[in-house]
Amino acid sequence: MESEIKINKKGDICSPKGFLSGSIFSGIKSPGQDKRDIGIIYSESDCISAGTFTQNTVVSPSVTWTKDITSNGNVRAIVANSGCANCAVGEQGLIDAKEMASIAANTLGIDQKEVAVASTGIIGVELPMALMRKFIPEIKMSKNDGNGFARSILTTDTKTKEISVSFEIDGKEINVAGVAKGSGMIHPNMATMLAFITSDIDIEKSALQEILKNSVKKSFNQISVDGDQSTNDTVLLLANGMAKNKKINTQGESKKFIEALDIVCTFLAKEIAKDGEGNTRLIEATVTGAKTEEDAMLASRFIVTSNLVKTAVYGRDPNWGRIIMALGASQIPLEESKIEIFVNDIQIVSEGIAISYNHQSIVIAMGEELIRFKINLNIGSESGVAWGSELTEEYVVFNSAYTT
Amino acid sequence: MESEIKINKKGDICSPKGFLSGSIFSGIKSPGQDKRDIGIIYSESDCISAGTFTQNTVVSPSVTWTKDITSNGNVRAIVANSGCANCAVGEQGLIDAKEMASIAANTLGIDQKEVAVASTGIIGVELPMALMRKFIPEIKMSKNDGNGFARSILTTDTKTKEISVSFEIDGKEINVAGVAKGSGMIHPNMATMLAFITSDIDIEKSALQEILKNSVKKSFNQISVDGDQSTNDTVLLLANGMAKNKKINTQGESKKFIEALDIVCTFLAKEIAKDGEGNTRLIEATVTGAKTEEDAMLASRFIVTSNLVKTAVYGRDPNWGRIIMALGASQIPLEESKIEIFVNDIQIVSEGIAISYNHQSIVIAMGEELIRFKINLNIGSESGVAWGSELTEEYVVFNSAYTT
Repeated sequence: MESEIKINKKGDICSPKGFLSGSIFSGIKSPGQDKRDIGIIYSESDCISAGTFTQNTVVSPSVTWTKDITSNGNVRAIVANSGCANCAVGEQGLIDAKEMASIAANTLGIDQKEVAVASTGIIGVELPMALMRKFIPEIKMSKNDGNGFARSILTTDTKTKEISVSFEIDGKEINVAGVAKGSGMIHPNMATMLAFITSDIDIEKSALQEILKNSVKKSFNQISVDGDQSTNDTVLLLANGMAKNKKINTQGESKKFIEALDIVCTFLAKEIAKDGEGNTRLIEATVTGAKTEEDAMLASRFIVTSNLVKTAVYGRDPNWGRIIMALGASQIPLEESKIEIFVNDIQIVSEGIAISYNHQSIVIAMGEELIRFKINLNIGSESGVAWGSELTEEYVVFNSAYTT
Repeated sequence: MESEIKINKKGDICSPKGFLSGSIFSGIKSPGQDKRDIGIIYSESDCISAGTFTQNTVVSPSVTWTKDITSNGNVRAIVANSGCANCAVGEQGLIDAKEMASIAANTLGIDQKEVAVASTGIIGVELPMALMRKFIPEIKMSKNDGNGFARSILTTDTKTKEISVSFEIDGKEINVAGVAKGSGMIHPNMATMLAFITSDIDIEKSALQEILKNSVKKSFNQISVDGDQSTNDTVLLLANGMAKNKKINTQGESKKFIEALDIVCTFLAKEIAKDGEGNTRLIEATVTGAKTEEDAMLASRFIVTSNLVKTAVYGRDPNWGRIIMALGASQIPLEESKIEIFVNDIQIVSEGIAISYNHQSIVIAMGEELIRFKINLNIGSESGVAWGSELTEEYVVFNSAYTT
């Protein structure tokens, strides 16, 4: 028996049983009000872990290390830094990532291979290891610093991104919590999306990896801010089994866990898209009536990735021509004469042709914080959703600033 | 024996023997100084023809018609209009495209199926057939209106795009000429890239189609303005054999014709990229030392398509981190420690790591009209080139203007 899922408004990455976190300001980022730039998440007991990583063929050695230890074993701690991506620095990168893991492992009293490393920030600059050596051992682990950790991974993000949910399996409370930072460009060099998820569920590793992969596919992989994929993108999930539920051995055994993880990943993904640089509003494109789910997901991604759609939203313009073009550019099967388009539930296209609508009501809809495009292809029963940011002058100004 | 290729500075689409053109202002576009909005290209004798068309699954019926008659026969005339894309208008679109061909065919005294149709402009609005019926028959064909035709297909382009080249095969002069309009967004709705090429060479159809396909792959398909592909993109090549050369039967028989066509297509493609909206400068990304030509072409395209690279160029910032990220995002094989990057011949990255360079000389290079990034992967011997526009505030302002 599984209960409904509750969202715990005061929860954070430490809400699942047995998880602690800590954070500190070491000076990797320039000093400022209340900044933190190194953080640790730690489980008091052994974890099983799963991860998904950037598909970029240039990869930060921090990712190389983390990918390696996650696929060959299980991590129970994550040490993350912001301000430096540890990328494009030659062989020193992997040496530094390993030492960073080692310092954190010694501090926590666990094995180096149990410590994942994540870095975000400037590319082409070596990790300031003197700061790491001095400050990582000073990080205090507690149940009360979840928000501090959330701050420690931010770069150009304007706010922290945290969520915690819970449900019950046969009376045992299961918690799933997540924290993320956005893919907005880091001044001066590189975007990174980091997300860390903790859970006290007892689950088998291969099931966890499969469930995470599917959830990431529908959430983090369906957002577009720049359209570029960073060298450091990482999603890591640690599960320590402290909920003492009957162990989940296969993917199908707990629908509620899948649902809970989807809620966590989707929430964080949308928060990232909304917090893209120069952007405060979120575009949601839902494609329904497609022949396959893959088609629907691809087409919705094309819509939120299109610069022409992004600028149209910024201009409060319900430009259905651009939506149809982006849809067609995905090259999925469609029948033009069956397409319907809705903006925040107001229909603007029927049978592939514009229909008359109240202009003012559309302009008002396009001015809302969430702009929902729904495209019904009417040729099947599958659907997909994607989220993206506007494209604003501020984005251009921000990203064209002299940096070197 | 084939001679060197000459660029004929005063040439235009009518330079090849037997080609005439004409243009008129009908009122499809709003009136303005010296505007034209319908144009015809016509060969006095039969042609063989080849074409490449948009891969978008939403297609203008003008493209449907032209694709159909080009694959099942040969066209010897093109009637083009700007101001209306004849797209997303339901079944009326194909009826109108056919009538447009028919009006032009009657005017020229040829068969309807010999007349290609191309439309560019607003989506979702039916072709104003009354204007077509009145003005197409009034178009005067001559050797002297090549520039008029070039103007008749423009939308938001700031200038015409024309080129004419010639060479000799065994003493016979062969001309190849081209005209194009850009893929910058049309206010208010849709981008389109149109290119028409004429030649007096005598050549077999399948060889022509193959040569055109290869040339388009390296030119028009390697440019990025918006990153979106329009519903109307068309490249058409008409060859009438009036040069009376010994007929070319296979692709390999005339290297100079391939070279001439590459010059024409590459020139037009670069002019389009340079004339992207809000943009006056051109980014050229050359990837060398790749394992395959496909890898090099894909990676170069990723670089010029990246919003982060586009904004960096706008900001005169030699942001090699963004270049490396875009390179890696293409997922081609590479070895990070072998990568070299040059900006206008000044090296900024060696062995995958930034090297010291004179900052002022790079800022000056980044301020030039042509910004050349050269990336040597040093793992093979193949190369590829792509061209793109900057991303400017003006682009955002232009494309976010209220239109509906």
